[in-house]
Amino acid sequence: MNSRANSSRERILGTAEAMILEHGFAGTTIEDIIDKAAITKGGFFYHFEGKLALAKALVERYIEQDDAMFLELSERADALSEDPLQRLLIFLNLLTETVAGMTSVHPGCLVAAFTYETQQFNDEIRDMMQQGMLGWRAMLQERLEETLAIYTPVIEVSPSALADMFSSTLEGGILLARIYDDNEALMEQVQAYRTHLRLLFGDIRPPAVQES
Amino acid sequence: MNSRANSSRERILGTAEAMILEHGFAGTTIEDIIDKAAITKGGFFYHFEGKLALAKALVERYIEQDDAMFLELSERADALSEDPLQRLLIFLNLLTETVAGMTSVHPGCLVAAFTYETQQFNDEIRDMMQQGMLGWRAMLQERLEETLAIYTPVIEVSPSALADMFSSTLEGGILLARIYDDNEALMEQVQAYRTHLRLLFGDIRPPAVQES
Repeated sequence: MNSRANSSRERILGTAEAMILEHGFAGTTIEDIIDKAAITKGGFFYHFEGKLALAKALVERYIEQDDAMFLELSERADALSEDPLQRLLIFLNLLTETVAGMTSVHPGCLVAAFTYETQQFNDEIRDMMQQGMLGWRAMLQERLEETLAIYTPVIEVSPSALADMFSSTLEGGILLARIYDDNEALMEQVQAYRTHLRLLFGDIRPPAVQES
Repeated sequence: MNSRANSSRERILGTAEAMILEHGFAGTTIEDIIDKAAITKGGFFYHFEGKLALAKALVERYIEQDDAMFLELSERADALSEDPLQRLLIFLNLLTETVAGMTSVHPGCLVAAFTYETQQFNDEIRDMMQQGMLGWRAMLQERLEETLAIYTPVIEVSPSALADMFSSTLEGGILLARIYDDNEALMEQVQAYRTHLRLLFGDIRPPAVQES
């Protein structure tokens, strides 16, 4: 694909994603996307044979972009500390900084949006959504296992549930940010997850009992 | 409204909610709802003048039902303990039991579904959604303030952010349950929030350092 075709494909995908997160998938027609992306009908169908093909490309792209962002933040965190717990805590602070730097309210998670219209899709797309979520779990779980190899949590934990808590926190936090129209709600929830890890791995200890 | 009219109104709302959580709001037509609810077109329009009126009634009903469930679980928890922290922890266990008792995967949160189609609605409905979320925050925050009046958290907390963590946990957990097709994911996240409160308020202490 030449770079001009590639850039029009990207423009369609970016436009479609933004529209779908506001209007829903069923509530966004190919005509709406064509108008907004300033592309011809032929241009659209050159890239996507229909709405389902578009949906599949959107899920693929969303998961790839999220994976790339998490990888970049992880690598930056890993460069800043040798300790697996501190790396995780730094990663969560870098993620909070990223949200703080956004110039508008978080637009939403495409996987969440599609989950609430799940019957619009097919098994292939639903499976990709589940694989994306399992990928985020695996990424966090690997880092949690590294921490668990060194630190003993103050209460027994399931590494997969603790990894899912990261995805759950982001999904819940993004939703709150949208409803409250304020990214602060998402930042607070990422920080709450961070505090949870600190409490769990003894990075915060109860204040010493004062002698009377 | 007589009880027969009331029951057909309820049937429309219940049918519409279930369909919308699977197909989206834009992806569910009035005709689809009429077919599935086995009602006449006249019957539908007797109760709702159109799709926006239906959407408004759905949000109202969803928030009322959730409030009623939380109130019932709270009252049961309050009957089981005098201590505000234990009441909260019991409430979260009762909520986990409620999810465990569900015979199918959690159908989803209507407020979350509508947030991902926000441009389908109007300011009145969007405001009701925000008020619903603020209501859940206020409910939890009141209980957290009672706990904070007695217990000192091991790290300073924002009561509103900690209250929002409850809503965020439910929204994130419900989404995971739907994507994994397993309510266990939601139960794990409710328990993770419960563990967070226990850690924060010193209901779990780090194991005593063993003397060597």
